[in-house]
Amino acid sequence: MRTLPEFELAFDGGFDRFLSEWFEFLRFPSISSQPERSADCRACAEWLCAHLAGMGFESRLLETRGLPAVHGELKGAPGAPTVLLYGHYDVQPVDPHDAWASPPFAPELRGGRVYARGAQDNKGQVMYVLKAVETLARAGALRPTVRVLIEGEEEKGSSAVLDCLDSWRDLIRADILMVCDTDTVAGGAPTLIMGLRGIVHASVEVLGPAHDLHSGLHGGVAPNPAQAIAELVASLHTPDGRIAVAGFCDDISDPTVKERELANSHPVDPAEYEKETGVPPVAGEPGFTPAERLGFRPSIDINGIHSGYGGEGSKTIIPARASAKITGRLAAGQDPERCLTCLLDHLRARVPSGLSISFPESGVGGPGFRLDPESPVARRARLVLDQLSDKPAAHLWEGASIPIVSALAQASGAEPVLVGFGSAADRIHAPNESFAVSRFRQGFLYAGLFLASL
Amino acid sequence: MRTLPEFELAFDGGFDRFLSEWFEFLRFPSISSQPERSADCRACAEWLCAHLAGMGFESRLLETRGLPAVHGELKGAPGAPTVLLYGHYDVQPVDPHDAWASPPFAPELRGGRVYARGAQDNKGQVMYVLKAVETLARAGALRPTVRVLIEGEEEKGSSAVLDCLDSWRDLIRADILMVCDTDTVAGGAPTLIMGLRGIVHASVEVLGPAHDLHSGLHGGVAPNPAQAIAELVASLHTPDGRIAVAGFCDDISDPTVKERELANSHPVDPAEYEKETGVPPVAGEPGFTPAERLGFRPSIDINGIHSGYGGEGSKTIIPARASAKITGRLAAGQDPERCLTCLLDHLRARVPSGLSISFPESGVGGPGFRLDPESPVARRARLVLDQLSDKPAAHLWEGASIPIVSALAQASGAEPVLVGFGSAADRIHAPNESFAVSRFRQGFLYAGLFLASL
Repeated sequence: MRTLPEFELAFDGGFDRFLSEWFEFLRFPSISSQPERSADCRACAEWLCAHLAGMGFESRLLETRGLPAVHGELKGAPGAPTVLLYGHYDVQPVDPHDAWASPPFAPELRGGRVYARGAQDNKGQVMYVLKAVETLARAGALRPTVRVLIEGEEEKGSSAVLDCLDSWRDLIRADILMVCDTDTVAGGAPTLIMGLRGIVHASVEVLGPAHDLHSGLHGGVAPNPAQAIAELVASLHTPDGRIAVAGFCDDISDPTVKERELANSHPVDPAEYEKETGVPPVAGEPGFTPAERLGFRPSIDINGIHSGYGGEGSKTIIPARASAKITGRLAAGQDPERCLTCLLDHLRARVPSGLSISFPESGVGGPGFRLDPESPVARRARLVLDQLSDKPAAHLWEGASIPIVSALAQASGAEPVLVGFGSAADRIHAPNESFAVSRFRQGFLYAGLFLASL
Repeated sequence: MRTLPEFELAFDGGFDRFLSEWFEFLRFPSISSQPERSADCRACAEWLCAHLAGMGFESRLLETRGLPAVHGELKGAPGAPTVLLYGHYDVQPVDPHDAWASPPFAPELRGGRVYARGAQDNKGQVMYVLKAVETLARAGALRPTVRVLIEGEEEKGSSAVLDCLDSWRDLIRADILMVCDTDTVAGGAPTLIMGLRGIVHASVEVLGPAHDLHSGLHGGVAPNPAQAIAELVASLHTPDGRIAVAGFCDDISDPTVKERELANSHPVDPAEYEKETGVPPVAGEPGFTPAERLGFRPSIDINGIHSGYGGEGSKTIIPARASAKITGRLAAGQDPERCLTCLLDHLRARVPSGLSISFPESGVGGPGFRLDPESPVARRARLVLDQLSDKPAAHLWEGASIPIVSALAQASGAEPVLVGFGSAADRIHAPNESFAVSRFRQGFLYAGLFLASL
């Protein structure tokens, strides 16, 4: 089977079963960040492992220092390429519990949407790929070898899995890395994610007086950590919004004219943006559109800053300490280790006399990357997506980071193809997460057609 | 009676009674900031009122919108000057309660010190003045008319009293305003406080996105309130530590050569300062000594700054809001209202595009002032202090503010004379507050000799 009508027929005939299996998957409260849920997470992994076996996969749990990952392999035709499907079975916490219209782990189909924690992120999107693989395999039409790696720590940052990738090289080697954990653009056109930004993070701590000092008795004499952290943070940007950290922006791999054009064909609409966020899209570097800034340029973001008094009225102190949380988003080409070093060196060099600085928690996530919109895999995915919608496929260079993607691409030797069918309406990470059955169906059709094309 | 030996004799003869009366005063848990203590505060005021009556004062409670002040008047010789004694009967909270070696409201004399909350600040220092007045009156030697205003809201900022001063003008009119709520210099030499700084305060709030945003999806596009508050705070000073707020430093009344000389004769010792505070005295404006910066120069102090995430690890957000607490200390000559306007205008003009700023709580305390070291009253006080110690009297221009002093000087028409016998060892505002009997005695001798000299 290779054609859209064949997959549509298969989906509509199989949907009742797909839905009941998807519900089984959703009933596990596999919240990875809550230690008391670790038995539930493992039960979910075991269920998934058995489910893969039932589909004909050779499957097993891969242990990590945290929760296990589920590995499976279903052999295809000799000489055909190998596809590695990456996804995760863990989900976000559910609080506030009271805000859910139906219990988060008792999935319900209402008005064409499945409501449950994980309905979309990522159980729903994993499920439609697996059902497409199964459909192809049962029809004897699966040409590529399909490997899966469904991990259990994505919502915690994947660090346990990242540590294992080297030792799993033989298990994950592939030609194509298929990731279905992303959204479409706002208008709903099927969307190829053509890049992600990398990430580094630093916790900064400035230490000053041994205890809070009276600001009258010491103001203008004792160095003030609250003032220092503000000056340090302010020094990271020029007045016009460029990054002012020496060396940080070296080695950026600039987009081609074609890439800029594609990115700008789905511009950020200022009115829409302000409606959604409450602010206009006016920050960052001059000379780039918002879509270009998100897709092709780094940013240094202040996630938090804390020092001294924050209650009602005034308290006349010079605080003893101050702290800030900073993340850097990296464009393709920037080396995370080098960027982090530049950032910390910049801050260290500017600590006012009499104060000390430390970086209690800092580290690199992964590098950013851009994919070639004209690579054979991207073209193949685009041809498939063009069949699914009367809207031409969109190309999106994401501002966000999925650190494991570049690590997995490197360890597996595979070329990533990132297509997902989420949307803002799914409210992932929030109460009443849901996924439209129509989107689940689109995902199934995309995965089936894409795999059938290999 | 006019001589030191006469007062020494009177003190030593009367001390047992002074101590028991001081203890009575200390037994009231008159914590003004705790609403559940307001009956205790009122009982303390009533006790003090009766105590003044017992000493021959005409006394009464003056109601305010908060806790009452105690007013008293003891007529002196016709034609003699009028002295207004200002003090406060309220005290700071006592937590952590467990840290007290003896209960805070069960005064104890141990090793030459009286331990209790308020032992020094300000019940002890009020008590020695009252006992000196009483001693003079009983000897028929009280020449000045003595008025007292002992308030109950000083530890809360005196605002209820400040609101009443205009209506109390007739009750507080005086020639000399005697304040005994200060310390000696570190070496213990008797100390004339020759100036205090004024104070203004502002709470700054920067509002941005309607809710925290994902820093990957919005970094470099959405304006960031945490970055903005840092840049606003950083803009308040030049890189070399001067105040950068236009107009803020206008109208400063510079010290005379003599005043600078007197201020610098008790320099801040860098090693001592660092031992005491944990930081070297290196902040503030270049071109002035620490003593000059505290006494004669304004400062803008960041008391707190808060935005976004402050917990463990990292959280990739662009925070929805940010806030800062800022106080300005003012040198003599600076108009508080004008300085506050300059500060707020400076901040308002620098809010980044897309964000808004507000000042939910801001206001002026009082102006700073300097007293003339060669005024007749200052010379008179110095002559008295020179009798009490073999160390010459020190002149200190304080960096701190007692907003009520300038307001009271203005409303009463009196010239302030600020001499107190506190020291860092008294640990006011902290657990195990105490006051040395030897210091109490010095205060009694000073007050007696000073009043006898009028």
